[in-house]
Amino acid sequence: MGIKMQRDELQVFLEKEFPQVSGDFTVEDVSEDGVRVRMHVSERNLRPGGTVSGPSIFALGDVAVYLAILANIGPEALAVTTNASVDFMHKPKANTDLIGKVRLLKLGRVLAVGDVLIYSDGMDAPVARASMTYSIPPKRA
Amino acid sequence: MGIKMQRDELQVFLEKEFPQVSGDFTVEDVSEDGVRVRMHVSERNLRPGGTVSGPSIFALGDVAVYLAILANIGPEALAVTTNASVDFMHKPKANTDLIGKVRLLKLGRVLAVGDVLIYSDGMDAPVARASMTYSIPPKRA
Amino acid sequence: MGIKMQRDELQVFLEKEFPQVSGDFTVEDVSEDGVRVRMHVSERNLRPGGTVSGPSIFALGDVAVYLAILANIGPEALAVTTNASVDFMHKPKANTDLIGKVRLLKLGRVLAVGDVLIYSDGMDAPVARASMTYSIPPKRA
Amino acid sequence: MGIKMQRDELQVFLEKEFPQVSGDFTVEDVSEDGVRVRMHVSERNLRPGGTVSGPSIFALGDVAVYLAILANIGPEALAVTTNASVDFMHKPKANTDLIGKVRLLKLGRVLAVGDVLIYSDGMDAPVARASMTYSIPPKRA
Repeated sequence: MGIKMQRDELQVFLEKEFPQVSGDFTVEDVSEDGVRVRMHVSERNLRPGGTVSGPSIFALGDVAVYLAILANIGPEALAVTTNASVDFMHKPKANTDLIGKVRLLKLGRVLAVGDVLIYSDGMDAPVARASMTYSIPPKRA
Repeated sequence: MGIKMQRDELQVFLEKEFPQVSGDFTVEDVSEDGVRVRMHVSERNLRPGGTVSGPSIFALGDVAVYLAILANIGPEALAVTTNASVDFMHKPKANTDLIGKVRLLKLGRVLAVGDVLIYSDGMDAPVARASMTYSIPPKRA
Repeated sequence: MGIKMQRDELQVFLEKEFPQVSGDFTVEDVSEDGVRVRMHVSERNLRPGGTVSGPSIFALGDVAVYLAILANIGPEALAVTTNASVDFMHKPKANTDLIGKVRLLKLGRVLAVGDVLIYSDGMDAPVARASMTYSIPPKRA
Repeated sequence: MGIKMQRDELQVFLEKEFPQVSGDFTVEDVSEDGVRVRMHVSERNLRPGGTVSGPSIFALGDVAVYLAILANIGPEALAVTTNASVDFMHKPKANTDLIGKVRLLKLGRVLAVGDVLIYSDGMDAPVARASMTYSIPPKRA
């Protein structure tokens, strides 16, 4: 297919279109197979004991797959999440950034599917696995 | 089984144990079959156009099923989410609280399962459906 | 919306279009909210100890939600499953039919979502819960 | 960890313990990261047009992750599926075997998680993705 948005373009798009999460995520790598995204973990992402919250892990999975889709279709489309499935497998390391590594598995006319392994930065075993389906609205003629 | 924690006890527990989300959720109803929880939607839950974010919907589903479990086993246990599956079905109403209605489907020795329909307050059709599995740690002797 | 296919019409449709599963399923009830479908459990659905296999439980969930969609849109469409999430909660009763009770949660232009509780006939607690998403192909002009 | 059951041992175990599916599956490869399993597609796995049925795809995902767990813990345990999430992404090729490639993501004391990409033999794009959670019963003392 060919990448339609590079790392810096995705980062700018994210900050412009989603100011509510501005500063939370850094796009670290983009390739045809997927993207790698860092979540900068801060106080509001934490739960007692310093662990990263479930909704924060979900948010990283969601945004990372979304960016992998945009990298392949460009910024014009407004994809929306229709389904998410998450396995929480290990407790995240306290006060540590999360890294999401996406595989884009399907990029259809109507639906796109990706999955993502989420790691505490510097750890080998993933803390979570998520798969996400996005509905891609029809192109305006 | 019999309810082990009433509405006010769940509310106090939530605010004490999870100060990070204090004020976000109100326990509205508790019965043997489940609970009803309100999410007070505020600026940080929103996305462009005033819609409520996916991670916020996830957060409501997660906390609502957790509270339904606690209502039945009491405050001593530290249940952790192991799996979540979410269908996002309709766009939430702008700037409107969300209501989560939980059915507790299984309360086993090791695993508990509940599902939750999530509504924009005042709307008939659910905006999302989620099912959540929690691992219940063994009792300390 | 109004029901477009009644119980007998769904049964005839199922047997004609899916001869491979003919005789496996009986449509027991149809209403605007959903359908109830019985799976006639036979030797090939069983695993050691007489328990009903996971793929059989999946098959019942899949066909039951499919029939609930057809009941509402009529026989002309060819919906395909795009996502399924299943929680296996209790061991099914040995050598006993399964009953699936569907709630149709969304019937959109492109996607339909339903969930189903699956019971061993005569038991109170569900053995499994499943949610299914179907993609509905565009109408031929 | 080290592999506790090699390819031939898994094959023999499968045929002995699950005579109902004997001949349906061949274990093709086993390594510390996962397994590759072939489903021999036959008439009863098919739907109109020769496509492989959803329950058959589910069955392959389920058995493949199960075998990946057994490869790592040995034949003594009786793991049961507690959760499955499946994305159906492309129509399988008609009358063609399916290949499941498992990644074992977590092998805990109580729960094991794996995911599997499922291919029509000889095709590049996966037809489905599944993640499976198994509950591992405590060892008998």
